[in-house]
Amino acid sequence: MMRQYLLPKTYSGEGTLTLSERDSRYLTKVLRYAPGTCFNGIDQSGKVYDLVLIDKQTLGISPAENGKAKQASDTLPSVKGLPRLHLLQCLCKGKKDDSIIRQATEIGVLSITFVQSRFCVSDASNKTIKAMKARNERYEAIIKEAIQQSGSAIPTSLTPEVLGIEEVPEFCKNGLGIFFHQDPLENQQSLGELLAGQTPNADIYLLVGSEGGFSAEECALLKQGGMFPVLLKTNILRAETAAVYALAACQSLLQEKPHLPL
Amino acid sequence: MMRQYLLPKTYSGEGTLTLSERDSRYLTKVLRYAPGTCFNGIDQSGKVYDLVLIDKQTLGISPAENGKAKQASDTLPSVKGLPRLHLLQCLCKGKKDDSIIRQATEIGVLSITFVQSRFCVSDASNKTIKAMKARNERYEAIIKEAIQQSGSAIPTSLTPEVLGIEEVPEFCKNGLGIFFHQDPLENQQSLGELLAGQTPNADIYLLVGSEGGFSAEECALLKQGGMFPVLLKTNILRAETAAVYALAACQSLLQEKPHLPL
Repeated sequence: MMRQYLLPKTYSGEGTLTLSERDSRYLTKVLRYAPGTCFNGIDQSGKVYDLVLIDKQTLGISPAENGKAKQASDTLPSVKGLPRLHLLQCLCKGKKDDSIIRQATEIGVLSITFVQSRFCVSDASNKTIKAMKARNERYEAIIKEAIQQSGSAIPTSLTPEVLGIEEVPEFCKNGLGIFFHQDPLENQQSLGELLAGQTPNADIYLLVGSEGGFSAEECALLKQGGMFPVLLKTNILRAETAAVYALAACQSLLQEKPHLPL
Repeated sequence: MMRQYLLPKTYSGEGTLTLSERDSRYLTKVLRYAPGTCFNGIDQSGKVYDLVLIDKQTLGISPAENGKAKQASDTLPSVKGLPRLHLLQCLCKGKKDDSIIRQATEIGVLSITFVQSRFCVSDASNKTIKAMKARNERYEAIIKEAIQQSGSAIPTSLTPEVLGIEEVPEFCKNGLGIFFHQDPLENQQSLGELLAGQTPNADIYLLVGSEGGFSAEECALLKQGGMFPVLLKTNILRAETAAVYALAACQSLLQEKPHLPL
């Protein structure tokens, strides 16, 4: 199922678009759209469009009136104004990153950035430029599919570089930076306390560890850089569960703030 | 990594236990425990034990003093008293149930129950008794592994029967029953509002739909049975993401209640 079509990065307001071979195949063979089929679109800035398949290779594109696509009635989520969450994920083993990217995009994060930390089993610096390029293309394809299927109004972006952990505080400096640690640290606030003071349009950066968590030096470095440690009040989770859990916890606490009469 | 060993259902307080062939292999070959190795255990009621491998086939078992295992220092989660959550999951396609069971157990649900609803693609009633037995054994193995790895203090149980959706309200009658629906229904409260009134030891039952959600008739039936519809304030999620999201949202909102100064 496709709830909306994500226009490519190269799109900049034209009335028509020539489809890539892959997208043409997807629309006409997988979804079996015939010429004349109308559907919803979104560009990389989150702007909404009405689309029509003109022929196998060509889309007709017009901006949606009042930002609401004509086909949107029952296929698009009704929630607007999700909190501005950013995921920073330490590199995990194997295909775990794929499922983290998929689920984070569904939930509606603005950006996904991978981080190299001491206890990461994978080491991005060993990869060739070519391998990194292939990796990013694969990750962007997962993001695109997740946006199209979930109908997310947030065009999640992938940071092309893998950050060193020492670069993380600078990356998060315009918002609230939180890192999830599995042992209690000194002067630690709870997630609810930290989020209670945030305005609705604050950027919130969530750094989730790899399987091994963070070293004491890394925790010190992150705290010194102005980031806040949080111990999730749950069991010890695998990295792929921790990312979804952290995003769901933050989004829910922020969305429910006005409804918690406590 | 194993944080604790889950004693089998047949264990009832003896000082030693003869290991199954599978568990013997796991402890001695995979984890390479030698005779004399001490480790933590938990039984199916959540009681904690100190264990020692006596020989390849035999465990020595003694109840942990004050409920705290000797080896627990840094390997077990420090969070006690998680909210009493129960997951009711409508049957999903393929291997999605596996990942839902795994993640729900990690997060610490008390029980997992599968439900047959109208829009389920899989149909449990077509399965033979033998196939259902094999399915339950596989699911219990996933739960066991997740409890052992996450160190969860909650011995998650699997309900052996698949419930029909009309049986769900009765199943949830001693607690708060919530079902997650993707369209707003009349007189709907938010998740935060619903949870705000709960006492810390209330049982909370969360019913998550299959890929197709719930039919209008099913929603009416669930509401009539005293269950509350909730619309999660997020994008449309796949079933496997929805389950983790719902559990994380409820657990966080309940755990953070005292910290939300609102």
